[in-house]
Amino acid sequence: MEKLLWIQLTMLVFGFAQGQDNSHNLMPVPQSMHINGERLRLRRSFTIAITGHGSDRLYREASRALRRLDGRVGLFFRQGNLSIKDNNPGADLLLHADSAATLRLYANESYSLIIAGKQASIRAKTDLGVIRGLETFLQLLSVDEQGYYFPGLEISDWPRFPWRGLLIDVCLHWMPMDVILRSLDEMAAVKLNVLHLHLSEDQLFGVESKIYPKLHLVGAEGNYFSQEDIKKIIAYADQRGIRILPEFDVPGHCTAMLTAYPELAAVKRNYSLQRYFGVFDPSLDVTNPRTYSFLDSLFGEMCALFPDEYFHIGGDENTGKDWLRNPEILAYMKAKGYQTVAALQAEFINRLLPIIQRHGKKMMGWDEILYPGIDQNIMIQSWRGLQSLYDGARKGYDGLLSTGYYIDLIQPADYHYLNDPLPEGNPLTAAEAQRVVGGEATMWTEHVTPETIDSRLWPRTAAIAERLWSHRSVRDVPDMYRRLAYMDLTLEALGSTHLKNKSMMLRRLCNGYDTRAVETLVNVIEPLKDYARNEGDTMYNVFSPYTKIADVASPDQAVARQFRQDVARFLMEGGKMLEDSLKMRLTLWKENHQLFLEAVKRSPALQEAVVLSENLSRIASFGLEALQYQKTKSGSPAWKTKALESTAAARQQGGRCDLQVVNPIEALIKAAPDR
Amino acid sequence: MEKLLWIQLTMLVFGFAQGQDNSHNLMPVPQSMHINGERLRLRRSFTIAITGHGSDRLYREASRALRRLDGRVGLFFRQGNLSIKDNNPGADLLLHADSAATLRLYANESYSLIIAGKQASIRAKTDLGVIRGLETFLQLLSVDEQGYYFPGLEISDWPRFPWRGLLIDVCLHWMPMDVILRSLDEMAAVKLNVLHLHLSEDQLFGVESKIYPKLHLVGAEGNYFSQEDIKKIIAYADQRGIRILPEFDVPGHCTAMLTAYPELAAVKRNYSLQRYFGVFDPSLDVTNPRTYSFLDSLFGEMCALFPDEYFHIGGDENTGKDWLRNPEILAYMKAKGYQTVAALQAEFINRLLPIIQRHGKKMMGWDEILYPGIDQNIMIQSWRGLQSLYDGARKGYDGLLSTGYYIDLIQPADYHYLNDPLPEGNPLTAAEAQRVVGGEATMWTEHVTPETIDSRLWPRTAAIAERLWSHRSVRDVPDMYRRLAYMDLTLEALGSTHLKNKSMMLRRLCNGYDTRAVETLVNVIEPLKDYARNEGDTMYNVFSPYTKIADVASPDQAVARQFRQDVARFLMEGGKMLEDSLKMRLTLWKENHQLFLEAVKRSPALQEAVVLSENLSRIASFGLEALQYQKTKSGSPAWKTKALESTAAARQQGGRCDLQVVNPIEALIKAAPDR
Repeated sequence: MEKLLWIQLTMLVFGFAQGQDNSHNLMPVPQSMHINGERLRLRRSFTIAITGHGSDRLYREASRALRRLDGRVGLFFRQGNLSIKDNNPGADLLLHADSAATLRLYANESYSLIIAGKQASIRAKTDLGVIRGLETFLQLLSVDEQGYYFPGLEISDWPRFPWRGLLIDVCLHWMPMDVILRSLDEMAAVKLNVLHLHLSEDQLFGVESKIYPKLHLVGAEGNYFSQEDIKKIIAYADQRGIRILPEFDVPGHCTAMLTAYPELAAVKRNYSLQRYFGVFDPSLDVTNPRTYSFLDSLFGEMCALFPDEYFHIGGDENTGKDWLRNPEILAYMKAKGYQTVAALQAEFINRLLPIIQRHGKKMMGWDEILYPGIDQNIMIQSWRGLQSLYDGARKGYDGLLSTGYYIDLIQPADYHYLNDPLPEGNPLTAAEAQRVVGGEATMWTEHVTPETIDSRLWPRTAAIAERLWSHRSVRDVPDMYRRLAYMDLTLEALGSTHLKNKSMMLRRLCNGYDTRAVETLVNVIEPLKDYARNEGDTMYNVFSPYTKIADVASPDQAVARQFRQDVARFLMEGGKMLEDSLKMRLTLWKENHQLFLEAVKRSPALQEAVVLSENLSRIASFGLEALQYQKTKSGSPAWKTKALESTAAARQQGGRCDLQVVNPIEALIKAAPDR
Repeated sequence: MEKLLWIQLTMLVFGFAQGQDNSHNLMPVPQSMHINGERLRLRRSFTIAITGHGSDRLYREASRALRRLDGRVGLFFRQGNLSIKDNNPGADLLLHADSAATLRLYANESYSLIIAGKQASIRAKTDLGVIRGLETFLQLLSVDEQGYYFPGLEISDWPRFPWRGLLIDVCLHWMPMDVILRSLDEMAAVKLNVLHLHLSEDQLFGVESKIYPKLHLVGAEGNYFSQEDIKKIIAYADQRGIRILPEFDVPGHCTAMLTAYPELAAVKRNYSLQRYFGVFDPSLDVTNPRTYSFLDSLFGEMCALFPDEYFHIGGDENTGKDWLRNPEILAYMKAKGYQTVAALQAEFINRLLPIIQRHGKKMMGWDEILYPGIDQNIMIQSWRGLQSLYDGARKGYDGLLSTGYYIDLIQPADYHYLNDPLPEGNPLTAAEAQRVVGGEATMWTEHVTPETIDSRLWPRTAAIAERLWSHRSVRDVPDMYRRLAYMDLTLEALGSTHLKNKSMMLRRLCNGYDTRAVETLVNVIEPLKDYARNEGDTMYNVFSPYTKIADVASPDQAVARQFRQDVARFLMEGGKMLEDSLKMRLTLWKENHQLFLEAVKRSPALQEAVVLSENLSRIASFGLEALQYQKTKSGSPAWKTKALESTAAARQQGGRCDLQVVNPIEALIKAAPDR
């Protein structure tokens, strides 16, 4: 192996070319783009002017764009914060909005961006459009032998869907202000426009209530947003053209609420904050008039605090078991002729709806709120899938898709990317399709802390953002991954900790600075997917250490993905260079185990992953032999049996992770001659 | 060169041994320690009990310690948040405080820590003492072939000085909540006990005032702490046993105040927030009664907001020029018979003092507030040096030292470490020495952003913390550096970004993932020291990009320090291993320049450092030749002249940095035979 091999093997897939022209690296891909071949040079004298309607939002965002750009190129631009005086038509970049938008669903976000040799301009109906265009402009910064420039082009761009959201659950693990604020910066960079905050749960009630202060004082252990915090979040988001959608989950997922106000519970018992994760029975007593007056006051307070026109009341995963445990509720159901808890849930939603509407909002909830006869002026968020979404649309209900966008489940980016709310050939009529307003990625935080959330959010969420913004036909997976690598560093520059926290966590996990052996392993393992990680729902709770190898490992490991691709290509095409490259990686993995065992001596916390390291080493060894057999065109049935036993055994888990290179190595073994 | 050389060369100095026993790695070094040879094993069943006085502070800190420990070892401790029920005398760690302390100067922070094979205990007069002991306990976590353990020992410990502070200036560059909160965690880890917030300046007024809201609305551009934020900071600090000392700088350094309330100014002009850094003329009109009623109201509000018994009014660097520009002030001075602006400043302080006292506080200020006859019940913070501090002490004034602890000036840790407020042989009597209450590191933020502040704070401030806590005789520099390397990762685990932001900034600066060539250079350069960086005080302002190579480069580079030590040792003792190691590093530096030039092509922002890279390459080349000449015992006067010209030239600056390995390479050249 040549020197520096380890670094190259961990970075190879991300190599950037010199003389980088970024006009084909945009994410999301714009609706239309024409390259004109000119180059707008970036100099210290660079200035921005606002020539149309000057909104506060635009002055601030233009000032922020200026500083972000200077932070990358270090030219010491002379222009300070923009104000009404900055309207020089000779500026390098002209921003022109006809008007300031009100931030709401269907607000106009379209823009045109023209870059010529002397000047660039972004024009839009609204300041929101200009702000979307600014992000495109910043992504275009390019480099040639003369320095920094912007490639000449003309872009006309608009979103495919008006609702492009990200849900952040701040309850299963508390997510403080800095996580929320930097997420807004990152969302804006990929043109997402709704941050959905999941604010109440069994584990936590996450907002200060002045009317029912026990909600945050008893229900949050200090981990809540004050109303002042919420106002800061809303203002920060508004500047970036992002709506804040609040969710208060009722009638289930409400243990924190009941810990504060047990008198609202369907079953009287001693309530305390739930420490485990899952679906639990506590529920509001929806037959009690007090529950409605409580929700009226609380939701009235929250509807006033959050300006968005939608108000999300959850409504999901109410088991109804506590209702059936209460004789009075049973009697109520009997008197009303309700056969099922679903019927009682329907009544609850039906009684809640006018309350929400009286507070000036449109009600939103998960699939479960949709029942026959409910008012059409609501929004359904579908976690049950396209069928459920389309059923709603056919019945006249607006809805958006979250199924397939559950980014907490550790699926690869392409899985989410190819998940289209309205795929080619979908069965909806144009009018029905119009009711599918978009989608939302969901970041549930069972197994995520402020330290690790970014590695679960980014860069994969950028692929979902593209799905919701760009034309339906944009679905070339390799091209998505190519551009995602560029976005990766853009997101990091905006504050995402997904790259830097990996190295920090590795140092802590290794109890030292030399993290190579562990990183070599980490780069080819992923945390268990879907709901497999939390065995029996009891392995983890809110006090668990999320500092282990499964937490350092990211979803969709690039090193493993590249290896899988290279093996596939090698098996089709062969080739000496590819073979050498596979050999180098296999040799690294084979030899890594000894180093890993040394690391375990320094850090017993690594013990749980020894099985993975050993399996990796063993199958890599067989992989090398497979290449050798293939080369010499000889083979051995006994060898192959043994080799395939090793890959089968390597599907074993360790440290709540599994190896991501078993399949390609198995393919190499299978492809080796039989004798 | 062998493979992986680059990594080894950048990490060599930090190698941790296996089977690590941390009993001799504590920082600050305790006053007394005896090893007893036992080992307390750490198991999943580990619990903490609070057996004495149970304060909120202690329950919370014990809970935090439990989670921090589990975060490192990943054992999934079963104990949740501690409460009054957690008082089992059979727990693994017993915490016993006689009482809860009021957080104030001279509060008792002493503790004893005993670790035996079956149990550990921390006992103290106050909960503050237990909290200090908990940090010591956590530092002791060790590893042997059986797993995690705590080494058996008995520690009796107390602080040498009662005032061990860190000043963070949030005005020259705004420092948001997350910077402040994580700094408090880091301060607690090294037993610092005062966070001094410098809250008003020419550039910014950093706190919400409900009485004079223009202060934060006009004087802060959104960058201020709300009163709710301040309460959060105070509560967070209190839990960690850290006082919050507020500073509002008057009568100079007040442009932000005057931008909001220009009627208070000594000279009427159009005020706007200062964008540059330095000492400016704007000053309060201290002859105007309105100024005093304004300060009375404002300081009354702030004295109520901040519970500490001290209130810092700055008082430094008032040029007095604006006073002399105002005929009415001149007339006032004449009428009073004041010959100097210092006399008027004395009157101002004299009139301010009873205002501060009436609000229940002791006044504190920089050296300038000390003038003949002023009340002795004040605290002087000395930036002018020991002489000034001792003069005050002799006259009966309490004081603390900041000279020599200006960590913004990029001096090495040992420079600060050896700076003792009361060195051996100091001229003070015991009574006078008693008045020297400690010291404060000062983090002025001209050239520091939230992204870079940690690399200027840590780990060097830990050395100052040890100076102020440990016995005067603890001053072994190599031992300090050895222990500082351990603290480095402890600080990172507490949230310090000093390591991880380096790699993030390198990726941004390199416009890609391959940062090796730039890091090789960065590891041997440091930003210009003292006030040299900001040439003519006009090169930088608040809008400048602090994302450049000088911002990535840290103070006190370990790679350069190690090289200097190795050269010194080699020149004294020689030795093949040392020679090989020097050769490897010189070869790396020599060959790096070509790679660096490739990096510049991808990132023109690196252009400014080409001169450094080229010089490093050239002198490394001469260094290699020097080693060769020494080996062959031959030489050439012409070669030596040329070589020394190259090192002289290599003292040139580039990118606001200079090379840190010129001296040792020059020493190698000089040591080579003359002919």
